[in-house]
Amino acid sequence: MNFCSSCGEKVVYRVPQGDNRERYLCEHCDTVHYQNPRVVTGCLPVWQDEVLLCRRAINPRSGYWTLPAGFLENGETALEGALRETREEACARVSDANLYTLFSLPHISQIYMFYRARLADMSFQAGEETLEVALFSEADIPWNELAFPVVTETLQHYFEDRVHGDFPVRSKEIRRSLLQSQHGRAGKG
Amino acid sequence: MNFCSSCGEKVVYRVPQGDNRERYLCEHCDTVHYQNPRVVTGCLPVWQDEVLLCRRAINPRSGYWTLPAGFLENGETALEGALRETREEACARVSDANLYTLFSLPHISQIYMFYRARLADMSFQAGEETLEVALFSEADIPWNELAFPVVTETLQHYFEDRVHGDFPVRSKEIRRSLLQSQHGRAGKG
Repeated sequence: MNFCSSCGEKVVYRVPQGDNRERYLCEHCDTVHYQNPRVVTGCLPVWQDEVLLCRRAINPRSGYWTLPAGFLENGETALEGALRETREEACARVSDANLYTLFSLPHISQIYMFYRARLADMSFQAGEETLEVALFSEADIPWNELAFPVVTETLQHYFEDRVHGDFPVRSKEIRRSLLQSQHGRAGKG
Repeated sequence: MNFCSSCGEKVVYRVPQGDNRERYLCEHCDTVHYQNPRVVTGCLPVWQDEVLLCRRAINPRSGYWTLPAGFLENGETALEGALRETREEACARVSDANLYTLFSLPHISQIYMFYRARLADMSFQAGEETLEVALFSEADIPWNELAFPVVTETLQHYFEDRVHGDFPVRSKEIRRSLLQSQHGRAGKG
């Protein structure tokens, strides 16, 4: 950030009065430009004993398998964002969605949420940012070709929890190198 | 948003190529300025059969009672943010924090999270943005003087769940008028 998005003057980077951390600040129009973590939401779509995965057509991690997910937009609930991303990336509809995993990724200032949901029918197909969409049983999950640690952990929890039929919400944090888990462009998934 | 924070030129508001919604966009340096929901995190500090509330010293809802909470900062986990806000607003330390409620507030593009936690000791006091801090038993909660619907709902769930000693994570949405639940300055709680 170099310029004030409000008045166009140069910004400075310092602690504003009454605050305790550095911010981008316009001394011309007195605007503080706060920067905060972004939320990524998605679904774990389940069909009988299989789960739906998408193979990414875009970087980062192009060619790797992921759960349909992307950045939450203004004006959406977390669930609405998860359902939209599932439609956009897998052209899939789900029902009975329940919050399942929540991850903090402080190194990239992201909060990730996945909803466990029932796939409504078999009419899914690859969206614009997806190479292919497929259903996988537990034995066939391509564990070494998963795109992000949040996907791996959500699937691991799911198969563990499925044994008992109890799916408590899991709240976790993942601290990794930028390369391993960065999720692409700022603000749009 | 009027100017590009990267190069200082005027921005336009239109759908970028390959996107499906309007964004602030700089046609000079080709930067898309995404705007996304913000995350507010806080604690429900519990001491024996009482809960800790803070009376707000700042607008919005100055003079009303709230749970300690504020905007998550870059580089923090959701839990770290909740603990920091509890220190800043109530000078209180907690332990055994577990995610308890998660709210989507789409009309103000916020995600709210509260952690149920054990108050570590009685050495709490009002922080800079707080008029007073006090412990309340269920019978004494000032229900008509609570600052925000997310606080009311979190407390209601807590007292319901306490009867059975089981505190499942509650994921909800609240759609209200701006006046009733807006949470102050953009990005800093």
